Amino acid sequence: MITVLAGGVGAAKFLRGLVDVVDVADVTVIGNTGDDEVFFGLHVSPDLDTVVYTLADVVDPEKGWGIAGDTYAMLEQAKAIGQDTWFLLGDRDIATHLLRTRLLREGASLSDATAAVASAYSVTCRLLPMTDDRVRTMVSTDDGEISFQEYFVKRRQQDDVRDLRFDGAEAARPAPGVIDAIADAEAVIVAPSNPLVSIGPILAVPGVRQALADTAAPVAAISPIIGGRALKGPADRMLTSLGHEASATGVARLYADFLDVLVIDQEDAGLAGEVGALSVRAHVTDTIMRDAASRRALAEATLQAIR
Amino acid sequence: MITVLAGGVGAAKFLRGLVDVVDVADVTVIGNTGDDEVFFGLHVSPDLDTVVYTLADVVDPEKGWGIAGDTYAMLEQAKAIGQDTWFLLGDRDIATHLLRTRLLREGASLSDATAAVASAYSVTCRLLPMTDDRVRTMVSTDDGEISFQEYFVKRRQQDDVRDLRFDGAEAARPAPGVIDAIADAEAVIVAPSNPLVSIGPILAVPGVRQALADTAAPVAAISPIIGGRALKGPADRMLTSLGHEASATGVARLYADFLDVLVIDQEDAGLAGEVGALSVRAHVTDTIMRDAASRRALAEATLQAIR
Repeated sequence: MITVLAGGVGAAKFLRGLVDVVDVADVTVIGNTGDDEVFFGLHVSPDLDTVVYTLADVVDPEKGWGIAGDTYAMLEQAKAIGQDTWFLLGDRDIATHLLRTRLLREGASLSDATAAVASAYSVTCRLLPMTDDRVRTMVSTDDGEISFQEYFVKRRQQDDVRDLRFDGAEAARPAPGVIDAIADAEAVIVAPSNPLVSIGPILAVPGVRQALADTAAPVAAISPIIGGRALKGPADRMLTSLGHEASATGVARLYADFLDVLVIDQEDAGLAGEVGALSVRAHVTDTIMRDAASRRALAEATLQAIR
Repeated sequence: MITVLAGGVGAAKFLRGLVDVVDVADVTVIGNTGDDEVFFGLHVSPDLDTVVYTLADVVDPEKGWGIAGDTYAMLEQAKAIGQDTWFLLGDRDIATHLLRTRLLREGASLSDATAAVASAYSVTCRLLPMTDDRVRTMVSTDDGEISFQEYFVKRRQQDDVRDLRFDGAEAARPAPGVIDAIADAEAVIVAPSNPLVSIGPILAVPGVRQALADTAAPVAAISPIIGGRALKGPADRMLTSLGHEASATGVARLYADFLDVLVIDQEDAGLAGEVGALSVRAHVTDTIMRDAASRRALAEATLQAIR
């Protein structure tokens, strides 16, 4: 059994490679729900959906999220009737949100609703939200505190991030199966996701970080920072503005209390010593996922690094 | 002030003509909500929406309901992920249902949500649901009792209707303004809608029928039955199977306790005497609404018949 802590696009690509090299039924994914938001009354779980769409091979290959070929007629109409439409919801995507929202309204937990969505898309790995409770990633900017989606989508990550807060995390409980999936795994992998806003919320759920430190399984992460930069998204700027180092070493430092191995890019081979000084073994490989072959190769290299 | 009791397509067409000949701000519409249903967790009010879309000139001109040029990507995706998709929800249409459902979830009454939807589409007549309470038209068939939408959409009106029941009507209260709109009107018009399942639910709300009998205003109806047949829908077969006469006379009989004038088609001129025998004055005109001019002419003829 392999347990993967996952954010959005990068994690989903990694998982797509992973299920090419191990049995999908042996994979448990613990997904970030700090980005979850209610739009138009629909409960949207962006990171969980990106994992589902990617594993179901329906994801938009250009964007890395959403459904390939989706249209935006609902959104156009919503705009025409004066609704706030800064968050992009595709027409096909809405079918997913309607299913999830209906189940939640009927009393299902987010875990149950997530399993139902995964099953609807014939995704057969175990997909767990980090918690069934409401945790909301809040971003402090020079203009005040805003929700993650406001920061990420509405304001296009233009703000300097001054602080992060995972609203509700203190009182949240790990979703059923989360702690056991870490404790009982043969290996735990932290996917190449933003360590602060994609993995950070998962680590903020009480008990998760300790479970990672306590598990007998080796814990590996793939650095989402290559040559000081994030391949996608604002992770590098966010690390810097929050006083961390935008480098593989900076990532290793954030995970050092539970991490055994950090998979870093060849470009960062020179950082292996720094990473090692944190008692984290660096494993150097090509970490850029350009296509199916490189995704698979990264999954294989990560598994090899753990063994 | 003119108050119109309205079902779906026929009523909406009549209203579209009416607001061409009177000030839209002087029109109050009391709409049937017995067809309302929850699909995919969305509260759908088919008759209210048909009125809104028609008055907003966005209605599909072929079907007479839904939004012109709408697409069905959400529905296709819902089908692909195993959802029940017998009820047609267009992508643009969903924007309306999301707005209504969100407002209801936030605690708005159906009256408030309906006003918000009308306003979003810049529809400036007063549009009232018959009640803010849940009333559900139930249809008894040889295969048992089913909801109106199951009868109408899922089973395509194939069943012989053995009985009708307006579930919840006994305990329902007229929506705010409904009784006053009838009592204080200069004229009340019952639109050319199915008298049993479109107007019937409105009349089943306690107090409405009495208000129609009591109002000082003249009450006119337009017969939806011409030459023994409904122009659209199953009204003729339904009248017959429920022991009524599928004719203008049959319609007059159903409304006789409150009706002053029945507008009937030239084809039915021979029924004027029968209708008159029910103490209802028959007004003969062309009642088929083919286009904007004939809709307007019917509205004018109806107003003339009342004066």
